[in-house]
Formats: sequence, structure tokens, C-alpha cells
Amino acid sequence: MKLHILGCYAATPSLMGNPTAQILEVRDHLFLIDCGEGTQVQLRKHKIKFSRINHIFISHLHGDHFFGLPGLVATFQLLGREKELHIYGPSGIKEVVLMLLRVGNSWTSFTIIFHELDAKEPIEIFEDNKVTVSTIPLSHRIYTNGFLFREKSKERILNTEAVAAYKIDKAYFKNIKKGKDVLLENGEEISNTLLTLDPPKPKSYAFCSDTAYDPGISEWINGVDALYHEATFLASEAHLASKTMHSTAEEAAKIAKAAHVKLLILGHFSIRYKKKEEFIKEAVPHFANVQLAEDGKLVIF
Amino acid sequence: MKLHILGCYAATPSLMGNPTAQILEVRDHLFLIDCGEGTQVQLRKHKIKFSRINHIFISHLHGDHFFGLPGLVATFQLLGREKELHIYGPSGIKEVVLMLLRVGNSWTSFTIIFHELDAKEPIEIFEDNKVTVSTIPLSHRIYTNGFLFREKSKERILNTEAVAAYKIDKAYFKNIKKGKDVLLENGEEISNTLLTLDPPKPKSYAFCSDTAYDPGISEWINGVDALYHEATFLASEAHLASKTMHSTAEEAAKIAKAAHVKLLILGHFSIRYKKKEEFIKEAVPHFANVQLAEDGKLVIF
Repeated sequence: MKLHILGCYAATPSLMGNPTAQILEVRDHLFLIDCGEGTQVQLRKHKIKFSRINHIFISHLHGDHFFGLPGLVATFQLLGREKELHIYGPSGIKEVVLMLLRVGNSWTSFTIIFHELDAKEPIEIFEDNKVTVSTIPLSHRIYTNGFLFREKSKERILNTEAVAAYKIDKAYFKNIKKGKDVLLENGEEISNTLLTLDPPKPKSYAFCSDTAYDPGISEWINGVDALYHEATFLASEAHLASKTMHSTAEEAAKIAKAAHVKLLILGHFSIRYKKKEEFIKEAVPHFANVQLAEDGKLVIF
Repeated sequence: MKLHILGCYAATPSLMGNPTAQILEVRDHLFLIDCGEGTQVQLRKHKIKFSRINHIFISHLHGDHFFGLPGLVATFQLLGREKELHIYGPSGIKEVVLMLLRVGNSWTSFTIIFHELDAKEPIEIFEDNKVTVSTIPLSHRIYTNGFLFREKSKERILNTEAVAAYKIDKAYFKNIKKGKDVLLENGEEISNTLLTLDPPKPKSYAFCSDTAYDPGISEWINGVDALYHEATFLASEAHLASKTMHSTAEEAAKIAKAAHVKLLILGHFSIRYKKKEEFIKEAVPHFANVQLAEDGKLVIF
């Protein structure tokens, strides 16, 4: 998976950086996660093709997570989009987008399919033959979901030398890649394990922003390859984190540890912090493999 | 007057520049005119104090002219604003702003006073002892107003040498600056023209975007010191200008000429044009004193 971080700052666009937006690249999908003001320009800056975005996931309806969405929809229209666009987000998102189009006497010639969410338990909201996406209910001031992206297992990899040695006909390859054994014409059965190699392990990514510290999250994201967890504040502002239902770096690291994730990415920083090394310092005692989000950063896992 | 051009591009935010937003500085006012996506960052970049913005004028409800407004209102709240905020714009603007606050379970602790417009003739929408602002009805695909800002005459300037020579007491100065003559104790009447100098001529500014070519505009903006008129297209795309109810550079220049303005500023450029000298070339045969808008440009007149 490739995670393009387009914006990782809290609350308001600033000279320091952009509000939340990410592109998760997995197989041939480009999933847009949140869409703060300025996301369009970030997409252009990082040469991400608008036409490849078909699914947009909005965590919650605070402006720094979706005020870029109406403009993006309008731009899709300007660009002559014809493909369906799926928007996943809290109930109310449809009304907002349609109203903003309506007051401009605008419309879209492509279909927008809204998937309005109100479940309080994790639910699967997207599935195809390559990926599933589920919600991660978060604890914030308004109804908020994180999103869990899980790649499905790829086919087994054909061991070309082995199949040649056994003189197996191409007609069998499809089934072999699906993990089936082969019965030769002479009656001999060849185990699939002799003919194939393990495919790469499917990857998984959890996006958790915005949220108060909630240990309950851990069970839903157990073992993910990468976790983006908000860390709006440092410990010195723990009282603000608590009051505004955000997390500190330490709390994010505790979630990462409890969930046995492989990599923790901290983000959604308050713009009060000019230097961010302190976030790493406060996280590391609890979870070692931690990175800081940065606008424009590409994380491959 | 000082005009800070924050964004002067049409349709969509891009790497080339920002959608429409301007700050007009006149006496102690900072009037914000339109508020496309990205306006907040432009305000910060150009060190314009958010707290000095008390009046926002929105021409029409196409996204490239107001999608930055909800985020700006949210930021005013974050910054602890207490002062009233006046928002002038087409009917519907109140519903939009309030809905976007409501879905985020947000509110403002300062009062927002919406001035919803639907008049089809020019009307005065703001007046204090220094400035008036009136609408300029424009011809666009949806209800749209330009805005005409007129400085009021300043007081006459006291000729300190003259009042000293006539030994006129300070108590008279207030009336003298208002243009009154003085009756000395010996019965002699001193004409005001002997005691004062002309104040600087009051300035005026007309903002006309977005609009089709409409010669009727000229009479309302006659003689203004500066006219910002949209020129979305060049003559080669005149058919698009006509179809989308925008103007060409030549048409903007014809309006400037007919209205006897002093300076024409062209803006709202389509991002299809990578070089903009052509806009000047097409305008100059009709009106000589023409400038191109640029993001970040300051025009003083």
C-alpha cells in the first residue's frame, strides 16, 4: 500500500500545512480519505489523477475534514467526469453536498452515490475482489468513523520451474494459482505447495482521526501494517486533548502497542507546535516504530 | 484605497493560482470581497489580520467565489472572535453557512449578521461616515452582484499658516474643517477657501465578477478610480464567454472605456491560459490604462 499524506494538521488551513486529506493507493484503487480545504491543490501538486478517485471516505463533518469536498465535486464536473463517485460519510453529508450544488444552480452529469453512515459498531462499507473497507467507530465530539482498509489475499504465485518439470499444461494454471492440487494423466497427484509460492501477505491500513483516547479501538485494528492515529496534542496539553476529545502522542502510541500494529504514523497536529520532534519523544517509550506525518509525505508499507 | 488581490483565477483552485478573493483597504476598513477556497491561507500569507475583517461581500454562490467562507467563519470562531461579522450575499448564503456549522455541531460565539440580497437594481448595502457600498447587478448564470465602494469626502484640510495669520481660535477649527466661513470678533468674515486646502479626492472602486458583457454596467460605475472586471477568456474563446456568461478582455476594456474609469484591472482568468500578455494586447486598443490581476498583487489607487 502507498499512503500519500496530503494534509496532516488540525483545525484550520495555515501556512504550516493543510487540514486532513490522504490518498491510499492499494491495488488499482486510489481511496481519498477526508478532504479538508486545499485538498484539490495538494492532489495537483502531487500529480494524483483526479479521474482515478472513485471513492471518498469522510470521517466526520468538522470543516477541517470535509470543506474541500464541495469544490472537489465541482471540479470533477468541470473536468467532464462521467464515472460514478462514491462518497462515504456521516448522515448529513448528502444534504450538504447537494445544497452547495443547488445554491450555485449546479449539478453533476456523473452519478454521486452517497453512503451515509450512522452505525455505532464497525461495519463493512466497501468490498470488491481486492479490498474491503470497514468503519472504525471513534470517540469524538460528533459522530466520527475511522476506516480500516484490508487487502484481500492475492493468488498464489506459480513456480514456473516446477510446473515445467512436471510438464503441467497451461490449462491448469488458473486453478493452481487458486491453490488447487493437480491430478496428472498418469494418476499422480501433485500437491499445490510443490507448484506455487506464497503470495505477498495482504496489507492493511487503519485511519483513526479524530478521536479521544479509546482503548476499545485496539481490538478492531489488531495487527494492521500501518495505523495513522491522531496526536493533536503533546502531554503538556493533555487537558485540552481531554476537553476537545483529541489524543496525545502518548495515547496514540498506547493504542498502537495494544493493537500490535507494525507502524504508527502520528498526525493531525495542532498548529501551536512549531517543532514536532517532541511527538516522537513522547510516543517512543510506548511504541518504537513511529513516524510523523508530513504534508506531501509518501509512506509505503 | 489599497486592493490586495488574493485570488484571481476562474473555476477551480490550481497550482497556477487561487479562486476569487480580494481585500479592499479603505480608511480603517478591510472589506473582503469573495472568498474562494484557499482564501484563509492567502490572508495569512499576506499578513492580513483576520480580526480586522468585519464585512464580507460575496458576489454569487458559485463555489470558486465562496467555498472558502465556511472555513473562514470556523477559523474566526477558533481565534476567539467576539465582534459582529457582516456577510453580504445572495439569498441562500445564510442557509448554507448555518447548515455547515450545524452538521459539525458547531456554532459561533460572535454574531453573524447576514444581509441577503435579491434586488435587481443597484442598492446601497453599507454606509458609515467614511464609505458607502452599493451593489452592481451583473449578468451571470445565477444571481450575481458586483460591488461599488465609494469613499466619502474627507474634511477640508486646515491651512495652519492662514489660521495663525488671522489669529483664529482653535474652537473654530472643527467648523472650518467642515467648510464653514469664520466671522471674526471685529465683524470681518473670512471665507473658508482662505483657511483650508482641498482634501484628497474621495476614491472609488468597482468589482465586477462574474459577468457577461453588459454595457448597462457602465452607467453605475462611471468615473471610478479602479474597475476590476472579469476577463475569463480571450477573443479566441469568445464563444465560450458567451455560452458561460463570462467576458473577454476586449469586452472588459469596452466597459472601462464607456464608464470613463481611471484604471482597469483584468482578472478571473481561465486556467487554460498559461501566459497572460494576450489579455493586455486585446484590451489596450479599447482602453489603455489596464493591468493584469495577480495573486498577491497590491494595487494602490
